[in-house]
Amino acid sequence: MYHIDHNPEPKPLRFGIALFPGFQALDAFGPLDCINVLSWTDSVSLSVIAPTLEPMTTKSPASPSAVGQLVVPTHTFATAPPLDVLLVPGGLGTRGSGPEVQKTIAFIRDTYPHLKYLITVCTGSGLAARAGILDGRKATTNKMAWKDMQALAPQVNWVPRARWVTDGNIWSSSGVSAGIDVTLAWIEEVYGKEKARKIANGMEYSRHEDPSWDPFAELYGL
Amino acid sequence: MYHIDHNPEPKPLRFGIALFPGFQALDAFGPLDCINVLSWTDSVSLSVIAPTLEPMTTKSPASPSAVGQLVVPTHTFATAPPLDVLLVPGGLGTRGSGPEVQKTIAFIRDTYPHLKYLITVCTGSGLAARAGILDGRKATTNKMAWKDMQALAPQVNWVPRARWVTDGNIWSSSGVSAGIDVTLAWIEEVYGKEKARKIANGMEYSRHEDPSWDPFAELYGL
Repeated sequence: MYHIDHNPEPKPLRFGIALFPGFQALDAFGPLDCINVLSWTDSVSLSVIAPTLEPMTTKSPASPSAVGQLVVPTHTFATAPPLDVLLVPGGLGTRGSGPEVQKTIAFIRDTYPHLKYLITVCTGSGLAARAGILDGRKATTNKMAWKDMQALAPQVNWVPRARWVTDGNIWSSSGVSAGIDVTLAWIEEVYGKEKARKIANGMEYSRHEDPSWDPFAELYGL
Repeated sequence: MYHIDHNPEPKPLRFGIALFPGFQALDAFGPLDCINVLSWTDSVSLSVIAPTLEPMTTKSPASPSAVGQLVVPTHTFATAPPLDVLLVPGGLGTRGSGPEVQKTIAFIRDTYPHLKYLITVCTGSGLAARAGILDGRKATTNKMAWKDMQALAPQVNWVPRARWVTDGNIWSSSGVSAGIDVTLAWIEEVYGKEKARKIANGMEYSRHEDPSWDPFAELYGL
């Protein structure tokens, strides 16, 4: 064997992303673009999973006049294949207790025990918290939504100043664009530093590589 | 009138994005997320425009084993409504001369004279160049694809060291994630500095506000 991985994993890995009405577009497509570029050189699979096979909207029911985009799922929560890595975006749609939010939370709860990794972006960690899998664990979330997240899930050890946080196999990021940093950090951990570097450079993305980098914690008074 | 805009434009503005097979996900969804968030406070419209109404894939025909996502168009190039602002992403799918690339180039050529602004991301500027609307103008593009872009369109005054470039009403950005910076810079120009600041902070995005910031030009030897 001529090469030893930084943190070898049996590959190819099977990725999935859980979508719901009002997911934030960049929460999903920052990480997904990293996975798309990864797939140019490494064999992976990706399932786009939602309550039904109907195209899923980024528009929140709470913002009827907003514009948005529709993304086509490959599977429903009921038909999703086995996964190694589940991505959970945040967004306005994580708020409330509508049936689609409840189904997303139930999917995270049921899927988590079989995963190698869970990666949450922004208020996606609120869904993971409501699934009960962050109890007593360290996690972070969107800094503008901080107080709401604390009130929603006081049993989580929320870390206020963090671009991202790892606890066991759960990687949670701060708001929206932090999803790119947590995904590249995760790729570095699993695929090695050089792979993460190449993907970031191809995306012309200037990474935040220090997980404690967080000017937004200060901005929002945390 | 109690408030004077930084650069007043009749609003609401009508946005469109041109999609084609193999557009890069983040090229599109970085700018789109900015527009989505803008629409929470400002009335805008957005059309997702493609060769047909079939969901459009981020997968390039040149990377059959890659993973990707499908986005649902709202209009075809033939049925697109009048637009004020057209976004053109790049991606592996800009290469070659297949019928869908040709249709995208023709749409840009036909639409440009009626636009207030054209915003290109990454190799999206190569499509604009092939539409003939960058002749003799300053523009930039993905730095990894620099030599290909120069060979493709030597009549463009390509700027090698730039996060983004403006020439008249054409705003062109460097690769992939630079689309977020050019869109926020454009929002600052049209909607004012405070609006751009709020959107960036909500996205927890640390903007590159200097258009000449470009470590990737150096990285790729430009």
